[in-house]
Amino acid sequence: MAAQPSDCIFCKIIQRQIPASIIFEDHCAVAILDVNPLASGHLLVIPKVHVNQLVDLSDSVAADVGRLLPKLGRTLLKVTGAAGFNVLQNNGEVAGQVVNHVHFHLIPRREGDSLGYRWQAGLYEDDQMRDTCESFKQALI
Amino acid sequence: MAAQPSDCIFCKIIQRQIPASIIFEDHCAVAILDVNPLASGHLLVIPKVHVNQLVDLSDSVAADVGRLLPKLGRTLLKVTGAAGFNVLQNNGEVAGQVVNHVHFHLIPRREGDSLGYRWQAGLYEDDQMRDTCESFKQALI
Repeated sequence: MAAQPSDCIFCKIIQRQIPASIIFEDHCAVAILDVNPLASGHLLVIPKVHVNQLVDLSDSVAADVGRLLPKLGRTLLKVTGAAGFNVLQNNGEVAGQVVNHVHFHLIPRREGDSLGYRWQAGLYEDDQMRDTCESFKQALI
Repeated sequence: MAAQPSDCIFCKIIQRQIPASIIFEDHCAVAILDVNPLASGHLLVIPKVHVNQLVDLSDSVAADVGRLLPKLGRTLLKVTGAAGFNVLQNNGEVAGQVVNHVHFHLIPRREGDSLGYRWQAGLYEDDQMRDTCESFKQALI
């Protein structure tokens, strides 16, 4: 386990050194209300272990956190009355990660909430898809 | 387990009834290249069981899929050379879900890829955060 840096805001929340709206806690994670919500009821699910990104999580903790997501999603729908929600987990500054302690966003969604995607999907050219697929299969061996 | 509807494109991929670039498969899930990628190497992680949304997944399958995410994320970074990635999982049409079979997007990110967020965060007013926190805690009992 990596040392918990003294400047990690999520470690401080987990250790109750600074206040937060903790709505759930178990052996592996806490869930809190995001103080800068994209919608009311926007949750952060934060593993207790201090690691920077998803790829640094152990299989065991990743499984424990994965197990929590449906439960917390059901609770979010029940509490907020939202029509749906997004799970978003950002790795790296380039991906929008702000706090360097792995966490999952659960974001309630409603019709007309203006949170629609503006990401533009593309297409693979010629053999690029086959080559990319092969590269993944080789890398997984 | 819900019946697998005959018109589910992901069930057809899992059953090899239609082709796809499958880069990984185990007892619980497959991972494929998205045919409409936001970036080369954009993956979909698809549980084999046909359920519509995350909230419909069993704890066991949710844990199994959660366990896969770091492994596939490491592979994505290795293969694509991306500087980071997003995990995105959409529940409901209002949240951008297109295929009604639960799945996770893993989206490679690079500097200047123009996939930046335009979502606008807000703030809770007065007692709204405390009240929302209490509502979650009550709903989780």
